[in-house]
Amino acid sequence: MAPKSVQSAPEMPADDPRHATRATRTAGRQMRSRLLDGASRLFRERGLAGTSISDIAAAADAFPSQITYYFRTKEALFVEAACREMLYVARAAEQAALPAHTPRDYTRALVETVTATDSVAFFTEALTLTRRRQDLAPLVERTIARLHGEGMRAYAGQIERHGWKSLRDPDASSRRFWAVAIGVMVEGHAMGRSAEEMCGEMLRVLGDQATAKSASEAARLRLVGDRDASDSDSPDRERSS
Amino acid sequence: MAPKSVQSAPEMPADDPRHATRATRTAGRQMRSRLLDGASRLFRERGLAGTSISDIAAAADAFPSQITYYFRTKEALFVEAACREMLYVARAAEQAALPAHTPRDYTRALVETVTATDSVAFFTEALTLTRRRQDLAPLVERTIARLHGEGMRAYAGQIERHGWKSLRDPDASSRRFWAVAIGVMVEGHAMGRSAEEMCGEMLRVLGDQATAKSASEAARLRLVGDRDASDSDSPDRERSS
Repeated sequence: MAPKSVQSAPEMPADDPRHATRATRTAGRQMRSRLLDGASRLFRERGLAGTSISDIAAAADAFPSQITYYFRTKEALFVEAACREMLYVARAAEQAALPAHTPRDYTRALVETVTATDSVAFFTEALTLTRRRQDLAPLVERTIARLHGEGMRAYAGQIERHGWKSLRDPDASSRRFWAVAIGVMVEGHAMGRSAEEMCGEMLRVLGDQATAKSASEAARLRLVGDRDASDSDSPDRERSS
Repeated sequence: MAPKSVQSAPEMPADDPRHATRATRTAGRQMRSRLLDGASRLFRERGLAGTSISDIAAAADAFPSQITYYFRTKEALFVEAACREMLYVARAAEQAALPAHTPRDYTRALVETVTATDSVAFFTEALTLTRRRQDLAPLVERTIARLHGEGMRAYAGQIERHGWKSLRDPDASSRRFWAVAIGVMVEGHAMGRSAEEMCGEMLRVLGDQATAKSASEAARLRLVGDRDASDSDSPDRERSS
């Protein structure tokens, strides 16, 4: 491991416009972020083995020494980039699912967002790598904890807001969602499946997460109005469409 | 790709006892199998990047040229070895689950067998590799088709035999089982979890696959005898324990 204490800042030529700003915290964060952006793009396209540190430096308009300064190794950068992308796609999925008015629409919005990118496959490659690089496990662990924690909160909030009846506890639902996403997408990418096919497969494998109303309520509605239980929140649906 | 037609057989010194038998079909199959055994052991321990063709040849008491003759590349050998291990563990899980008398015992036996080895993690690494090596996809595709086909048949047979009520169709149950296995185990291995922890997590994420009796029968039994529905097949349980 590189002795971090002796590398207080990467040395840059003073007249280089890329590094004209002082190496403040903000500038450091911006450089880190730029390196992660460039790395994510290349790693997604070419994988870990097909990408070198100098490729990433060139893509991020930086020096290779800056990569080792901020991330130490290519593998650590790979895992950090994949974890970041996974949290991005999780947040995008929650945003996309927010306007849903039925449990089915909610799940579909989540699944469509998640299967539209290869972030889950990228993250799975990072998980596979971490198995043999346990020094990288803490970041993966934090990412998974956030993924499940935020997923659980979002789902529990949505259930509460609409008065849905969840078929299992929100924590198990969130863990199940991500386990199924990884399983379906790692298989789908290996078999060259399209995003649409993976979306269909994931919805099929997930099955129902929740019902619009509790079973007894649905039965009562059916007896009273002879309507399908899923129509019980049709005013909301009309507003949303 | 190696021109297979011109390589009719690997050239071996005639006095080498390892190759005394004629290169018949049987001997060829045995050598293939031995190479796969040695490769599986090394790949599981060290991963793809940490294992060379000459390591595998040494472990299988063979020549490197025999590996390229039978498998062409290290990557193709990796994928074939992982696919074989995945089908082995699937069959072992079915065997272990055969004596189960309740849906819960059945699922537990499957999950315990699958989480006790790292075959699923090995197969996931092969799936990740195949994503960038689409020439290896046909073998993966056949393996997944067999996995789901055999899993579905075994599950449907067990349901039929015991008169269980499946909570979803057997094909979806099988796909769900393997997707969850991949998702839970790739995460568990990255986080250095024990087999017991992964078993618990997988059971939790899977939830119930089937009920011992249909919902209406369970309700009737409850009304008649005020017994818990899961006790309805207690004579079987007593015999099995």
